[in-house]
Amino acid sequence: MVAVKYEFIKQCKQSGARLGRVHTPHGIIDTPTFMPVGTQATVKTMSPEELKAMDAHIILSNTYHLFLRPGHDIVRKAGGLHKFMNWDRPILTDSGGFQVFSLSAMRKITEEGVQFRSHLNGDKLFIGPETAMEIQNALGSDIMMAFDECPPYPAEYEYVKQSTERTSRWAERCLKSHARPQDQALFAIVQGGMHEDLRVQSAKDLTSMDFPGYAIGGLSVGEPKHLMYEVLDYTVPHLPSDKPRYLMGVGSPDALVEGAIRGIDMFDCVLPTRIARNGTTMTSGGRLVIRNAKFSEDFGPLDPNCSCYTCTNYSRAYIRHLLKADETFGIRLTTYHNLHFLLQLMRDVRQAIMEDRLLDFRDSFFEAYGLNDNERGF
Amino acid sequence: MVAVKYEFIKQCKQSGARLGRVHTPHGIIDTPTFMPVGTQATVKTMSPEELKAMDAHIILSNTYHLFLRPGHDIVRKAGGLHKFMNWDRPILTDSGGFQVFSLSAMRKITEEGVQFRSHLNGDKLFIGPETAMEIQNALGSDIMMAFDECPPYPAEYEYVKQSTERTSRWAERCLKSHARPQDQALFAIVQGGMHEDLRVQSAKDLTSMDFPGYAIGGLSVGEPKHLMYEVLDYTVPHLPSDKPRYLMGVGSPDALVEGAIRGIDMFDCVLPTRIARNGTTMTSGGRLVIRNAKFSEDFGPLDPNCSCYTCTNYSRAYIRHLLKADETFGIRLTTYHNLHFLLQLMRDVRQAIMEDRLLDFRDSFFEAYGLNDNERGF
Repeated sequence: MVAVKYEFIKQCKQSGARLGRVHTPHGIIDTPTFMPVGTQATVKTMSPEELKAMDAHIILSNTYHLFLRPGHDIVRKAGGLHKFMNWDRPILTDSGGFQVFSLSAMRKITEEGVQFRSHLNGDKLFIGPETAMEIQNALGSDIMMAFDECPPYPAEYEYVKQSTERTSRWAERCLKSHARPQDQALFAIVQGGMHEDLRVQSAKDLTSMDFPGYAIGGLSVGEPKHLMYEVLDYTVPHLPSDKPRYLMGVGSPDALVEGAIRGIDMFDCVLPTRIARNGTTMTSGGRLVIRNAKFSEDFGPLDPNCSCYTCTNYSRAYIRHLLKADETFGIRLTTYHNLHFLLQLMRDVRQAIMEDRLLDFRDSFFEAYGLNDNERGF
Repeated sequence: MVAVKYEFIKQCKQSGARLGRVHTPHGIIDTPTFMPVGTQATVKTMSPEELKAMDAHIILSNTYHLFLRPGHDIVRKAGGLHKFMNWDRPILTDSGGFQVFSLSAMRKITEEGVQFRSHLNGDKLFIGPETAMEIQNALGSDIMMAFDECPPYPAEYEYVKQSTERTSRWAERCLKSHARPQDQALFAIVQGGMHEDLRVQSAKDLTSMDFPGYAIGGLSVGEPKHLMYEVLDYTVPHLPSDKPRYLMGVGSPDALVEGAIRGIDMFDCVLPTRIARNGTTMTSGGRLVIRNAKFSEDFGPLDPNCSCYTCTNYSRAYIRHLLKADETFGIRLTTYHNLHFLLQLMRDVRQAIMEDRLLDFRDSFFEAYGLNDNERGF
């Protein structure tokens, strides 16, 4: 009995992308899917009802942040993360690995795990594979991630090799210490940097352990996009076709489409919510910086082709006014729109797969979005 | 043909408070009512749908702020404030007078009006009675306020006398320059500081001009509460009984009840939204500071007697976590609750008037809220 199961529906004859469903204890996720990020048990500025209105099927929350604050013990006592944050659809929690390496200070990596200092108050803390499982078991997410090291880019081949092998050993320890496999599915994370042999080895090591799902980590860490696509091209074929495939930390519109074409089912990224807070919005005509003075008397919607709450009810001039005046509601409106934009993009991608025309969709979408080959990584 | 009409329903036999309705171009307001403040064309952190869900009948927006940013001309071009901010219920705009005196720098008051420097960028600006009408006519609010001077507290009798007489002269100029009396009702503001003769004179001067409604300004400016109630006691009898009476800038739960008892129909205040942003909430058991460590593992609602969205779905522990983590959604939840609390209080007040038991309601409400006589101003 596994907590999460992948149901294959069909493959796009034109692109090779796949359409499917991920069945979880809190409902079904249509894939390919984008997961809004709710780092601290909330998708910044959004209510659960708004996330449902834009039809988010699953959200991601961060193990590292919740470990530090409020502490996983409080979330457990609250009845788990779903109840704590009033979200009854699926939740994926990351492993904490990426944040330990990107946010904390004075890291010391050993075979046991990682010692670090909290970025909040300097407290000396430790997370290893067993801790990562303990925390995520307390959070009660539908999908947990194995504790991994995400090597920096660029990194020496030898370092990445050692790190990737350790990540596999850590994955095995995660599998062993995971206390609730009937309720929560544990996904492994393929690492290996930009090295084909290490990626293939990592995929082989992890798939031999038979996880219910696999992520590809260590991408979108500063490498050029064409390199990311190359890694996908030689890694995905080594992942089982009957399990979900999740590309971590990727959320630019072009990479979502390119990832789907390469057989990815799940994506997450802070990009749409982060840029929304600066007033940058994604539209069918490309990026639009709403603080720009030229929008001060523009009474049309952010995106004339968008049917979201923001575009249905508010003008560019009003949203610009709110952002200039530091009004939170302005950020709510841009955040709602950007998330809706990516979720709608994934609905369009799924429809295009269904109709065997994802390459055609990609070309017309990219042209309208104004992406040239260089920006797309080609 | 006037834009706004007061409909008297009944007087509370126990307290003298009155129940009524104010009919406006954008709908009916049940009175006594509390108006959430949307200073910059948004009630901070709230959506119009949320304000409707908590059944706000009318909101207030600030002429001074909208004059500075985005500028009333942009709001006019947008089709007026209702359309600009997506709010189709009544809006009251203040005169700009209070903000000119409390926020701007380098004020110079003449018979003509007030010269000042913008608190945003130092621009030299001017608002007089005619400008205040021009701005509010452009905004298109249902209820406009006459341009007034709000004297500081304490102030010399002679200064208050001169100022109050000027406010009456300004009110007359407002009446003359108001361009849309069929669409927008202009209310006058009774001033006179804490001086009975000046208040009575102000009320007489203004009522002789036959405005469709009257406000009492210059209160809640630092004076003790018992003084405010005294002013109401001797001012309200000089206001016509067939017009709405609005007590400006007052929103503490006790003052709302005491004001209603003294015949006030409308109130506004930034208090509920401002304290919400610091994590202070109003509950049936009194004020509750949610950041307090004792709430870290309290999984009950903010207020067990409250039926609002926040109290139905979220725990004190979660809200505390969000506020400690600087998450906007936490402020949305406390803001929603505080506004709902005051709107529910006014529903309770109206029900108590209907049933001739407002004094009884006051006593039991104040006891539960934990207000002693001193805090209540007695």
